[in-house]
Amino acid sequence: MTKRGVFLTVEGGEGVGKSTNLAFLTERLKAAGIPFISTREPGGTELAEQIRSLLLTPREEAMSELTELLLVFAARAQHLEACIKPAIEQGQWVVCDRFTDATYAYQGGGRGLSQSTIAQLESLVQGELRPDYTILLDAPVAVGMSRARERGELDRFEREQQSFFEKVRGAYLHMAAEHAKRYRVIDASVELEAVQQQLGGEIDSIIEAWLA
Amino acid sequence: MTKRGVFLTVEGGEGVGKSTNLAFLTERLKAAGIPFISTREPGGTELAEQIRSLLLTPREEAMSELTELLLVFAARAQHLEACIKPAIEQGQWVVCDRFTDATYAYQGGGRGLSQSTIAQLESLVQGELRPDYTILLDAPVAVGMSRARERGELDRFEREQQSFFEKVRGAYLHMAAEHAKRYRVIDASVELEAVQQQLGGEIDSIIEAWLA
Repeated sequence: MTKRGVFLTVEGGEGVGKSTNLAFLTERLKAAGIPFISTREPGGTELAEQIRSLLLTPREEAMSELTELLLVFAARAQHLEACIKPAIEQGQWVVCDRFTDATYAYQGGGRGLSQSTIAQLESLVQGELRPDYTILLDAPVAVGMSRARERGELDRFEREQQSFFEKVRGAYLHMAAEHAKRYRVIDASVELEAVQQQLGGEIDSIIEAWLA
Repeated sequence: MTKRGVFLTVEGGEGVGKSTNLAFLTERLKAAGIPFISTREPGGTELAEQIRSLLLTPREEAMSELTELLLVFAARAQHLEACIKPAIEQGQWVVCDRFTDATYAYQGGGRGLSQSTIAQLESLVQGELRPDYTILLDAPVAVGMSRARERGELDRFEREQQSFFEKVRGAYLHMAAEHAKRYRVIDASVELEAVQQQLGGEIDSIIEAWLA
């Protein structure tokens, strides 16, 4: 029987350095000879990326909060069936840029949708499947927002106000405390080298646990 | 206080003459001076129509059944908030080409998704809102399919097999029996004139009840 791969998600608000640190993380896996795929949410398949584009593109018509939530889970259902589950079952690690905790943080914390509504859809779409590990890149909102705004054109989420991102960050920190065994919180407000020293240590310990 | 409009849905399988009979129905409302809007599902707003196009366009990637169901309800949530609910509250009738009963028929009956999963999403998205009346245009599957195939290029649903449409029809007839007060079943296998005689009678009685 093939050993199941690790399902590793990376979370964090705007401008916390997710892209840079994801690249660092996957380089580390490559160097260790770990078989993995790298993917993202919303998205990860052609259809799910089309749903992502509906979610992120700013438009005149205001998207209802429930529509947003259902689109997120529609993309997730597709991503799980067509990509994540088969990979894990074949023994590959799946490194995923955001997953359901982002839904709790953005649609729950940020938009104020109830935890129980999100939990209902999580259970419908995922059954018992949860990430094995979640790396949270955490930084004060002001730091992240000023970094994000240097990147140019803002998507439908990046256009939100500071208070929105404070709620997102609060929701992430709350989940990290609640699921302490699964979460690895990285202080992303320090110099990149120091961030990656923390991150490298966490990855190495996850690899060791898997190889054991 | 404005009198609430009537929420009237029109259902039926492929090739039962929905378009022709919807046009007849709305002409009848116009002649009676009833304020109404005419809309359709999935769709009815710009965003919901974009979701419709994801649902109907044939593609290489197989869409998971749950993704299909969640996309249908994402479009519905948007349609309800941005279009249906405001119209009904302003006293307009809403004539809708398909609604949630189509989900029970196609995704439930046709694809085999459980009634309870659909009911869970129905309650999340609609709360207590249900159509006031549902007109079911019913015809044997062979009749409908041969009509539908004369129309040219088939969408992702029209490409299904006869057994799929038998299950869709069965689900509709089951709902009509279960919700006998709400349903008006029209025999759509007869000549158009005879179909419209039945339909006209039903519309007139619904108008009378509303005006009373």
